[in-house]
Amino acid sequence: MQWDTKFAQRTSFMRRSAIREILKFTQNPDVISFAGGLPAPELFPVERIREAVDTILTTRSAQALQYSTTEGVNELRDSIAARMSRGGVQVTRDNIMIVGGAQQGIDLIGRVLLDEGDGLVVENPTYLGMLLAWKMYNLRYWTLDTDADGLLIDQLEFLLHYYPKLMYLVPNFQNPQGVTLNYQRRQQLVRLLDKYDCIVVEDDPYGDLRYEGEHIPALYEIEARMHGSTKLEGRVIYSGSFSKILAPGLRVGWIAAPLPVIDKLVQAKQSADLHSSTLAQWIAYEVGRGDFLKQHIETLRTVYHQRRDVMLDALARYFPEEVHWSTPAGGLFLMVTMPEYLDATELLQDAIAHKVAFVPGIDFFVGEAGWNTFRLNFSNARPEMIEAGIKRLGDLLKEEVILQPM
Amino acid sequence: MQWDTKFAQRTSFMRRSAIREILKFTQNPDVISFAGGLPAPELFPVERIREAVDTILTTRSAQALQYSTTEGVNELRDSIAARMSRGGVQVTRDNIMIVGGAQQGIDLIGRVLLDEGDGLVVENPTYLGMLLAWKMYNLRYWTLDTDADGLLIDQLEFLLHYYPKLMYLVPNFQNPQGVTLNYQRRQQLVRLLDKYDCIVVEDDPYGDLRYEGEHIPALYEIEARMHGSTKLEGRVIYSGSFSKILAPGLRVGWIAAPLPVIDKLVQAKQSADLHSSTLAQWIAYEVGRGDFLKQHIETLRTVYHQRRDVMLDALARYFPEEVHWSTPAGGLFLMVTMPEYLDATELLQDAIAHKVAFVPGIDFFVGEAGWNTFRLNFSNARPEMIEAGIKRLGDLLKEEVILQPM
Repeated sequence: MQWDTKFAQRTSFMRRSAIREILKFTQNPDVISFAGGLPAPELFPVERIREAVDTILTTRSAQALQYSTTEGVNELRDSIAARMSRGGVQVTRDNIMIVGGAQQGIDLIGRVLLDEGDGLVVENPTYLGMLLAWKMYNLRYWTLDTDADGLLIDQLEFLLHYYPKLMYLVPNFQNPQGVTLNYQRRQQLVRLLDKYDCIVVEDDPYGDLRYEGEHIPALYEIEARMHGSTKLEGRVIYSGSFSKILAPGLRVGWIAAPLPVIDKLVQAKQSADLHSSTLAQWIAYEVGRGDFLKQHIETLRTVYHQRRDVMLDALARYFPEEVHWSTPAGGLFLMVTMPEYLDATELLQDAIAHKVAFVPGIDFFVGEAGWNTFRLNFSNARPEMIEAGIKRLGDLLKEEVILQPM
Repeated sequence: MQWDTKFAQRTSFMRRSAIREILKFTQNPDVISFAGGLPAPELFPVERIREAVDTILTTRSAQALQYSTTEGVNELRDSIAARMSRGGVQVTRDNIMIVGGAQQGIDLIGRVLLDEGDGLVVENPTYLGMLLAWKMYNLRYWTLDTDADGLLIDQLEFLLHYYPKLMYLVPNFQNPQGVTLNYQRRQQLVRLLDKYDCIVVEDDPYGDLRYEGEHIPALYEIEARMHGSTKLEGRVIYSGSFSKILAPGLRVGWIAAPLPVIDKLVQAKQSADLHSSTLAQWIAYEVGRGDFLKQHIETLRTVYHQRRDVMLDALARYFPEEVHWSTPAGGLFLMVTMPEYLDATELLQDAIAHKVAFVPGIDFFVGEAGWNTFRLNFSNARPEMIEAGIKRLGDLLKEEVILQPM
């Protein structure tokens, strides 16, 4: 049977995520992997989850194992709304839809907002999972460069003259670069998007994982204050996730948005999967009760802060001076830039042979750029492994740099 | 902000599922609901699930709470493949992709196979969730009527001359009618689809829940035998689910299909949500180990068989003779047909006022039909509630029938 002739036209835009294919390699425990965006498994709050499941199955098994509403479990929506209500903004249950991880949120946002050929403004590089999910809409991309304070806002107004439908960004500890958009630029950004009536997706899976510096208000807070509003009723669609602060294997995230957007998203999600796992939602709720989540996030921040420092220190010691990297104030990633004559995809072949893995940066870029960059994750491996892995990579890089004719 | 002008064109095809909106009404515990397709919550294997979670968190918490592959947990895929290997067919792990419930399977199948305006053959009435999920493709529908032995196969060849892309059906205990396609017609169906190179989606969430008669081989088995093959390599895409045999709140289902189809589905699912809840997948695997699932299905069959009989008996006693209904050999649903001068959507208003609920049939039909039909679920309510609810409905129906001028 000739399946090739049967598949829908849009499948020609589909391809497997390079990261997820690399992750298969790294199932081998001998490989030191800086590839995935994986949390440290030894920090999963296993006993708290066990107690939570016990409580749930004792007190509400009939509810937690049954079909549920598409919007999600009300108790969880309330607790998320309470966590997000700050800076004068009152987020309510009705602003929240639970999704099966932030990736589903991105997919559903695309379904309800993007038409073929719409214009999209993004940081360059930007999040690979968004690029893959929205590839089928054949979007026109308008890209913004970044520096250590996030995207270069002075390039934005020019792009907005083309009236793009949407802007997508990860303002905190961006994936893949680890950079954070500073407060002043956030204010300018919100003002400009307002002026040009452009919707913005604020993708914020890492916002709680800050290791230094002050918390910067989210775009939805800045926007509400600018409008003198206490509600989510502007142009910001916020995407949040329990994957990095609790456990990705639950697949629980959320979208917070103005009511008309939530209404459409609920319709799209009904068709997509009816609703997310009821049990996983109750676990996220029950584990997060009281101060536990706050305390757990403190633990993660302490451990990941140390791992980031170990990686930065090892990079300084083992990498050749021709190679540079970003210094993130939080999150899970930093990005390495090699001299332009080196190709990270080629380096990865060697690296895997030497049992160390990363993700080449090229797939995060719109357009022909980034071949000489790669992303390193510092949350997953233990400090001694980070040290050993960076040394291996540094040795490889030194060979490569020396071998090149000037 | 004018959101109406921002939403994608395809959102004009979206609407909320009538069933899921009715389900919100029925959260009131005073309402006797025959509306949802809800399993009996008192039969959820709560202690087995508690033990399963304990075992998982003790033996493999790092794995079960972490990101996983898009295809799904290998142990679960193996156990599904083993369960599906029968009638001479060897289903392998590579034929199986785990999804977040069968609805996601339907959505993803649409994404990889359906282009705007493609032709689709369906039973009429057919499954509402498929109609909603695929509405955005603006399909041409070719419909087949049904009798007590399933769809009328002698109408099929005529339709196949139009070379539809796909046929969708629920061969066992169909939702909403409860009818089952007999063996002879399955053979004819497979032969005809072969001849006209038409793909078929065999949606089978209820197949294990048979209360009388003999198990009928699945389309994928019949097809393999016809081709003299031992593999899944024909035109059948099979959709299965743990929602009805274990617990819908886990949101774990699967697709079994030829390898090229699985390959495309994996790409689509990567973009849609990366993967389904790792923990929920491990629970489905661990609960199903050994003979437990088999024994649990026996329990479900015994209880649901009794509930079906209670409902059929109550229908015979309380419903006026002008009203007819189907007699399913399994599954969760039967369908009631009133005289054509009655409208089930109007009846529902009265019924809800009298605290009993069902789903009007009209949304299950393609074209203008079915206004005088409604679907009753018999798995969720306890026998005494079924009796009481059918009596309430019968009283309402008797009034309606009498009130009508002849």
